[in-house]
Parts: sequence; C-alpha cells; structure tokens
Amino acid sequence: MAFTGIMRPGHVQLRVLDIDEALTHYCDNMGLIETDRDDQGRVYLKCWDEIDKFSVVLEPSDRAGMDHMAFKVATEQDLSRFESRVKDFGVETSRVPAGELNGCGERISFIAPGGHRFDLYAQKEQIGNSIPTTNPSPWPEGIKGMKAIRFDHCLLYGNDHDETVRFFTEALDLDLAEQVVDGDVQIAAFLSCGYKAHDIAFIRHEEPGKLHHASFLLGSWEQVLRAADIISMKDIPLDVGPTRHGLTRGMTIYYYDPSGNRNEVFAEDSYRYPDSPVLTWEADNVGQAIFYHSRVLVDSFMGVVS
Amino acid sequence: MAFTGIMRPGHVQLRVLDIDEALTHYCDNMGLIETDRDDQGRVYLKCWDEIDKFSVVLEPSDRAGMDHMAFKVATEQDLSRFESRVKDFGVETSRVPAGELNGCGERISFIAPGGHRFDLYAQKEQIGNSIPTTNPSPWPEGIKGMKAIRFDHCLLYGNDHDETVRFFTEALDLDLAEQVVDGDVQIAAFLSCGYKAHDIAFIRHEEPGKLHHASFLLGSWEQVLRAADIISMKDIPLDVGPTRHGLTRGMTIYYYDPSGNRNEVFAEDSYRYPDSPVLTWEADNVGQAIFYHSRVLVDSFMGVVS
Amino acid sequence: MAFTGIMRPGHVQLRVLDIDEALTHYCDNMGLIETDRDDQGRVYLKCWDEIDKFSVVLEPSDRAGMDHMAFKVATEQDLSRFESRVKDFGVETSRVPAGELNGCGERISFIAPGGHRFDLYAQKEQIGNSIPTTNPSPWPEGIKGMKAIRFDHCLLYGNDHDETVRFFTEALDLDLAEQVVDGDVQIAAFLSCGYKAHDIAFIRHEEPGKLHHASFLLGSWEQVLRAADIISMKDIPLDVGPTRHGLTRGMTIYYYDPSGNRNEVFAEDSYRYPDSPVLTWEADNVGQAIFYHSRVLVDSFMGVVS
Amino acid sequence: MAFTGIMRPGHVQLRVLDIDEALTHYCDNMGLIETDRDDQGRVYLKCWDEIDKFSVVLEPSDRAGMDHMAFKVATEQDLSRFESRVKDFGVETSRVPAGELNGCGERISFIAPGGHRFDLYAQKEQIGNSIPTTNPSPWPEGIKGMKAIRFDHCLLYGNDHDETVRFFTEALDLDLAEQVVDGDVQIAAFLSCGYKAHDIAFIRHEEPGKLHHASFLLGSWEQVLRAADIISMKDIPLDVGPTRHGLTRGMTIYYYDPSGNRNEVFAEDSYRYPDSPVLTWEADNVGQAIFYHSRVLVDSFMGVVS
Repeated sequence: MAFTGIMRPGHVQLRVLDIDEALTHYCDNMGLIETDRDDQGRVYLKCWDEIDKFSVVLEPSDRAGMDHMAFKVATEQDLSRFESRVKDFGVETSRVPAGELNGCGERISFIAPGGHRFDLYAQKEQIGNSIPTTNPSPWPEGIKGMKAIRFDHCLLYGNDHDETVRFFTEALDLDLAEQVVDGDVQIAAFLSCGYKAHDIAFIRHEEPGKLHHASFLLGSWEQVLRAADIISMKDIPLDVGPTRHGLTRGMTIYYYDPSGNRNEVFAEDSYRYPDSPVLTWEADNVGQAIFYHSRVLVDSFMGVVS
Repeated sequence: MAFTGIMRPGHVQLRVLDIDEALTHYCDNMGLIETDRDDQGRVYLKCWDEIDKFSVVLEPSDRAGMDHMAFKVATEQDLSRFESRVKDFGVETSRVPAGELNGCGERISFIAPGGHRFDLYAQKEQIGNSIPTTNPSPWPEGIKGMKAIRFDHCLLYGNDHDETVRFFTEALDLDLAEQVVDGDVQIAAFLSCGYKAHDIAFIRHEEPGKLHHASFLLGSWEQVLRAADIISMKDIPLDVGPTRHGLTRGMTIYYYDPSGNRNEVFAEDSYRYPDSPVLTWEADNVGQAIFYHSRVLVDSFMGVVS
Repeated sequence: MAFTGIMRPGHVQLRVLDIDEALTHYCDNMGLIETDRDDQGRVYLKCWDEIDKFSVVLEPSDRAGMDHMAFKVATEQDLSRFESRVKDFGVETSRVPAGELNGCGERISFIAPGGHRFDLYAQKEQIGNSIPTTNPSPWPEGIKGMKAIRFDHCLLYGNDHDETVRFFTEALDLDLAEQVVDGDVQIAAFLSCGYKAHDIAFIRHEEPGKLHHASFLLGSWEQVLRAADIISMKDIPLDVGPTRHGLTRGMTIYYYDPSGNRNEVFAEDSYRYPDSPVLTWEADNVGQAIFYHSRVLVDSFMGVVS
Repeated sequence: MAFTGIMRPGHVQLRVLDIDEALTHYCDNMGLIETDRDDQGRVYLKCWDEIDKFSVVLEPSDRAGMDHMAFKVATEQDLSRFESRVKDFGVETSRVPAGELNGCGERISFIAPGGHRFDLYAQKEQIGNSIPTTNPSPWPEGIKGMKAIRFDHCLLYGNDHDETVRFFTEALDLDLAEQVVDGDVQIAAFLSCGYKAHDIAFIRHEEPGKLHHASFLLGSWEQVLRAADIISMKDIPLDVGPTRHGLTRGMTIYYYDPSGNRNEVFAEDSYRYPDSPVLTWEADNVGQAIFYHSRVLVDSFMGVVS
C-alpha cells in the first residue's frame, strides 16, 4: 500500500485508582490480555485481535482520566514530517525516547489545542494476535468476558474545539467524517484516519483535556447484548445502552471502569472512504444523532467525563 | 487523509446474456439500484450504501464473464503516476475518455499479466447513498431482496499468477494480505488496498482472464441466512454456502447470476492494517482455508469460471 | 396431543382513537395484516405467522385501552368446563354469540377479579399463515416494517392482584411461571399456558382493568434492533429499549401506538415446561428483573397504562 | 396447566465406543455437564438450561447407536394410562424399576413398531439449571464449547414406518406436525408433543431401530456459526451445514460424535400449536425440505445411521 501518515489509533494510557480492580475489569470482564508490566507499575494490555504488544496502558494514579492517546504512523519519515507540521501549526512537541513504554519506539508528543496529550510513533513490537499466522482459526479459545476485538477510538471533551479540529485535519491529515452542528457552531467532530467512521472524536466543552470514553470493538449486535448481560452480571456501572448511535450507525453500550473512566463496546455498522461526504447532524436532531432510538440526551452521558 | 494511490474497487463490468433476467437478479433479488443506461445497452447499478453513480455495469453479450474491473484512485496525479508505473512494469496502457461510461472520468486501461482488463480512474459522479447526508437514518427503506451494501471485491482465475501478484504489489502498491501456498508455489493471493482482508484476489490457473466471482457486502451472518433463503425461494442456482471462509474469516454464500457469472454475498469478520503480517494457508489446509467448516473443495466452486 | 384447556392467547381487542393512524402503526410499521372489517368499524388484523383469521381487533373509541383479551381453548367441552369453573370461582360469565367477532365462534366472557374482561373460545376461522402448507418457504415476501410474527401476550395492571392470580391458576389452570415479590407480597405474576415464559402477566395496582402492554414476537435480537430503528425512523414514541428483561430473559423494546396503548416487540430467549420451578425476583432486584441491563425503573414504564 | 400426557423428550441413552472421547465431545466441545456415573460405567449428562438430573446417558459399548429414548409424562396416572394404551395397540411393555437409571423413577419400556426402544417415566430428580431460581441471570458463566441449551429431539430411521407413526399418534397422542410424502407414501414424519416443530421424527427405512441423529438446541443462528467454527477447530467430523431446513425452518449443523453417532445442534425458527395444520413436503421438493439452501440430498446424510 502506498499508505502515508497516520495509520490507526495505537494505544490509550488510562489513569486508574486501583490496578487490581482495573485488571479485573479490563481483563476478566472485557477480555483484554495482559502482556507486560513496567517499573512505574504500569500494566500493558491488548485485545485478542491486535498484533501490537499493547493498545491499553493502565497507569496507577490518584485520579482517573486519559494520560495520552497515541497513533501509529506508517514510517519514521512520517514521524519527522508530522513533527514539523505540528510545530508549524504552532503546537510544541517533545520526543519521548524509545522504550519509555515497553516495546514502543520513539514518540513525538504534544498537547493538542483542546488540552489532550497525543503521541505519534512509527514502531511498536508486534507479538501477533492470539491466533497463528499460518492456518489461523477464525477466533482463539480462552478469551474472557466481552471478548473485545480491538481498541478502536476515543471520544474527548475539550475546549478550543474549532482549533482542535483544524489541528487534526490540517496538521495530522485526518478527515472530518461526521459532525453535529448548532447553526454555525460545530458541537461535535468525528475524525477518521481514512476508512472507519471515527478514529477519534471531539466534543466542544468548557474544560480542557477531558476523556469521555475509550471504545473497543465487538463483532456483532449479539455480542453487544452479551456485553450488556455481563455488565449487569458483574455489577459494572452502566451508563447507556444497548442502543444504536445515529452518528456512525454504531451499535453500542457505555459503562464505567472501577476508576470512573467511561468505556464503550460497540459493533460497527458502517464504513467510509476518503472521498465520502461529511455527514451532518443538526442541533434539532442531536438526540437522535447520539442515541438513535431514545433520542434523549442522558445527563450522565453528556456531563460525566474523567 | 494523506491518502495516495488506489482507494477502492470502483466497479465491475459484467457480460450478461439477457439484460432483463440480469436486472431481476441484481436488482430484485440482490437489491442493487438501477441508476442509468447508455446507448450501448449497458445498465448501471449501485448498492444502496455506495455514494458513486455505479459500481456494477451490466453489458449485453453473447457470453458471460468480466469485461473489466476498475479501481478508484485518490487523485488525477495518481492516475498519471500509475500510468507510468504500469508502463514501466512492461504492461501497455491506453486511455479511455471521460464519459465512455456515463458519469465516469478518464480511465487508464490495461491488461494485467493474468489476462484480465483493469481500469483506473480518479473521478466518478457521486449521487449519494440512499440516505441523506444531513440527519441520516441508519438504513433506507424500500431496498429489495438481499439488500447488498456495496460491491466489495472480485476473485479472478488467471495464468501467469506470480507476475500478476508482482504487478499488483509492485506497480499498483496493493498489499499481499493472505495467501495459499503449496510448498514454494503460491496458489492464491488475496490483495488489499489497505484495510480490508481483500479488495481483489487471484487464483493460479491455466487459462487467462477468467472471473471466479464478484462479491458484495452484507451486514451480518443473519443477513447471509436471509440471502440463502432468497436464493432458494427465487430458484437462484446455489454454488456453496452459507459457511465461513478460513481465508479472510468471511461469512459467505455463493451462487450464479442467470448468465452463469458467480456472485458472492458475505459479511466481514476481520480487518487488517498495512503493517499486518501476511497470513498463509498451506496446501494441506486448503480445504479449511476455503470452506472453514466442510474443508471440502467443491468441484463446481473450484472449476467453474466465466 | 392429549391437550386440554387453554391453548394460547387468541386475540386482543384494543381501543384506538383514530383507526387510520392505528392501521399505519400496526400494519405499515409493525407488519400486521388486515384481514377483515365489520359494521361496528372494527378492523381485524393478524401477524404473518398466525393461522387464525385475526389476533388483534382495533375498535374505534374515544379512549385507549384494552376492551378484552381472549384465549383459545382446545375444545367446545373445554369451553363449557371453564364456564362452570369460572362460575364456581364466583365470577359471573356471559355467552357472546358466534359471529359477534367475524369468524370467531361462541365465546364465554367474564370480568376477572382485577377488572379486565377476558373471553374464551374454541373456534376461530383459520385462514393460514402467509406461506402455503405444502412446500412452505421459511418466510413470506412483502411483510412490512417490524415483521411481527405473532401476538404473544399482554401485561395488565389491576387491583385485587392475589385474587386474579388465584383465579387464573385455579379456575383456568395457568401456571405461575415467574414472579416478583416484596417480602410476602407478590408484586408481579407471569402466567403460562404451558411452554412459554408468559402468556399473560399481572402487576399489582390500585386501579382495575388497565393495560400495560400488548406484546408481539420477533425472530431475533437483530430484529429487535431493526424494530428500534423503525421506531425512530417513523417517529413512534419509544418507551424503553432495546434491552433484556431479567424476567423471562426476553430481548425487548417498548413503544406506544398513536392512541397511547403501549406495545412491546421482543425476541424469546427461554422456554419452560409445566414442571419447571417458579422463578422469583426479590424486591431488591426488581430493577434487574424488569430491565436487566439498566436496573432502573423508568417512570413512564412503571406509571403509564391505558 | 391442565396438561396431560407426554410432556417432553426426557433423555436419550447413546452407546459410545470410548467414554473418555465421548466426554471430550459432549462436555468440552458441546457444553453438556456431567452430573453422575453408575456402576455400569454409564455417565449422565445434562445441558445447562435443563432442570432434570440428566438428558443424555452415555453407555460404554462395542457399537454406536441409541439404546433408548425416553419421554417424561405429566403424572404417574399418565404412565399407567399409556401402559394400557401401548398394550392395547399390540405392543408389549415392561416395567423398569426406579433407580435403574440414577435419579429416574419407574419407567414403562417398549419397542415401537420401527424397532426402537422407548421409555416413559413420570419422575426424575430435578437438580435445576445452572442459574438460581431466585434472581436468575440470563445465562450461566463457565459453560463450554457450543453451550447446548437442551436435548431437543431425535430423528430415527426404522422399518414399519406407517405403523410407527400410527402408534405415536394413536397410542401416545403426539401430533403429526410435518411430513414428506411421495404420492401416497409418507417418507418422513415429524411428530410433536404440542408446541415444538418436532419432538421426534421418523424416516421410512428398510432396517429397524436406527439412529439418524440426536439433536440439541442453540440460542441463535450466530451460535450455529460458532458451533460450526468449533467443529472445524476441534476436528469434529462434519456431516452437513450450517444451513436451514425447509422442514421445521430450523437453522442447523450436523456432525458425528467419536463413536459415529450423528448429532445436530440447531436454532429454532418456528413454533406450532395443537391445532396447526400439518405441513407437507412433496417428493419433488424433498431436497429443499431437508436442506433448504442447497436442495441437494447429501449421501452421507441420507445413508449413514448408527
């Protein structure tokens, strides 16, 4: 592939209050797999169908939230190229040395206009998904709980919304795939590396740097039901769902990890191409945009961030 | 998106013996939508979730088969660039003027080593999918039959297999995503523009230029069952399925159009990235590679091409 | 079968404020089929997989609610037998002549202790489901909207709850399949003719004779999603769902007809036998009993009846 | 419920060549649970959603096949009543003492005209399904493999077909639900205790007493796919599927246990009532009747019995 630039969401580092409770949640209940730990007490996780060493880093902390989200770029040249473009946009960058996260190459790190830290990297150790590359079975045995397939995207609340979206589209080449507008004001922007309905999304907010949710992919609407059942069986605090989004058409359920970070598991029901038109939801339809069935904006969903 | 190169399968032009029977098949039974006709008697079709004017062209003929398959490239610059690279590879190219197919821009046309004609183009009229771009519903009403979502890929039988694969990977930048090998001999190659398990596939064969099947996407395994029911209810000749492929993990069913062109409808169950490892199926497991459940190579499936 | 007694819910007669709006709702949106009208202005409907002439009667009225629900008994002897047993229980009965409802035989009619009218009948004209009895296809073409399969049950709010349950189990031989209890007080009773998790259910209430919902069967959780999409696409007032009940394990969504009668469509996920143990939900778990995922008792769901 | 007579298929005793291989198959791969063993070396199994102590008995033997199938009747009175009626039909009966099978009450035993042994019993120890009767979750954790829900029915090949069907309908009160006919000759009869499309089925055959398959219920077509995947992953010999039957509309897959006994797992897609019309498949459509999609009678499926 003559692919250049940002390839995919690579990982999210989440702050958690209690690492054991977090591991019960992410591993036993959601099905992620622990792949490493480091001397900072961070624990590295991946979903079963991911080839890289990790897609989630749990960082012990006294407060919840997202430390940073990272994207994998295609090449080292892309890394340097984006470093320049980010600086040219007026955003400071720093370099994080290879190995600061186990198995991850050198990273470019910066705070986007909305107050969130993002990293870019070109190399991460590949340990393979949980099935062989020769004569693979369609799925592995022994995966637990919800059997999350991959870390998919984050939705973030931040200030300086317009500048954030301009930064991601102009400096990082993401596409605006879908948006919510109130007259001339964009309330929400769903941005894509290329083929998915969203790889990251931003909501206009008064505070900088907030996490609304980290999202993980499931295989079908039936698996969303199974996740919903597990949420109740395991006393996981539910936020909303199961339901469908108007935005992205995703079939979804939201809940909280033990530290109060919101998670989503969802099944995809759409795709896009780089030349797909931007889809727009108007403020009058924002309820339907977010929860297509109920059309009701749930207070907790709109207001709680970490 | 900083996307360059081949973006997606754009259309397939199929030869059909009887245009009315073909329309019953593709429109009434599979759910494609007629969008235009031309003075050559060709009929233009699209699936409901495609934004371009057409993805299938039915060409009246006295024999079945594929006239050509076309890919959409990102820009006019890509078109010229690939024209040079195809020539440099040693393959002759010609230019097909804009408008030769209604709504399609200028095309670069060439015969790949395996004997199939391929076209590249950078422009095609967009008429939108069947739902609005503002406040879209998740699916449109009134779509018929199997409700195919998009034209997805073709699988082709041709000679000069190794050269074909080298051509597609070296001159056109596709990735080898998955393969079947018999010792050192590659039997089958599944090639990707980037994110799908396959956008085109080739099987080593003694004859040039044959079509094994043109494939269309469905939304779920339940929709594959519904398609299977329709196949029987409408007396459509079934080839194989419903079942799952080992290759690509797709959930699938095969059948023939009234002219003898094989179709597939399938639901995806995987994804890949440009840095995903090549998946390899060995000759001993070729049955499982092709039909994961039965592991049996059906004679018609292996032998019948158009 | 050596079957005796009450065989199944036969029909529900619902009062509607506007017959045309009701027909759009029940036929176009839910997929029922109009089979007859009478000179009282009543319209007769059936679901596609029902063999009897009707399972829903829409009665023009100035208020919403349930006129009566009727059960089919196996034989005329059963009809006489239940007439005696109902009288012996102390409930007055009357006879409704054959033909009062088009195609329906003579009925025994009575007001159960909770204030609802029920009828029993042994004969109803069979017009067949929408597929032939010889070489039937698995489903018929042309069914609209949600494609409801059958009228399944009603849930009723009424006073004199304990007497109602005693009446249905002792005089009519239904089984108590599942219940919600608050200490020694039964809050809800789910009663079965034999093999389904419920054929009728009662909730303890201060007012007599109220309808909570009339429920219709769908084929799968995917069809519940499709119904949920239709609810939003057609501006049908949603109550709750899609979700799962703890009680009966059903996968469900609730909404209102244009007159304010609540409907449910659901997919079954359990079965029972006459010797299955009674399942009990305790008051502490009543949220989970009703909405297994959210565990939250929605005010509208608990309070609105017609 | 005023239920009388035969309530449900209660268990099947299968002969297996190697008990350990059989347990790997039925427990690890299909998800049944071992509940007991006896001094004859028999192992007792149940599916997770069955309340009785066992529904499958594995009997060590030097040949495969069905020792007997048993039905549970509603009461001890039914047991005596059927004993008389079976004798009156001209079939000899014997009594098997309570406890001959662990936890099972006294049985009436007889050889039906087609050469198969059937038992009737009114009592079997209930140990509950794998979830509590108070505040039950919708499904239990830890169930393995295909997660079979219940033993559902057997299909048997036997001689004296017409007499067998007459025996089951006249002496045992089952309903003829569905049939395959070739002119005046009935090829296959699907018989129901009342509400299911079949509780037992017979195929006209030259030999007496053969087992075609023992069938187990799954929850959805997606679970049939998962079972199909497991069949290939675990090297279980597949017979046919996944596909749909025309007969009963069931969504199905067939395979063999290590001894050569054929199993089916399937998801239901229909229901019936005692007054439903008999559905008839004609010989010209027998392919579609059996495998609705392929319409092809597979030799192994038609010919192999144990």
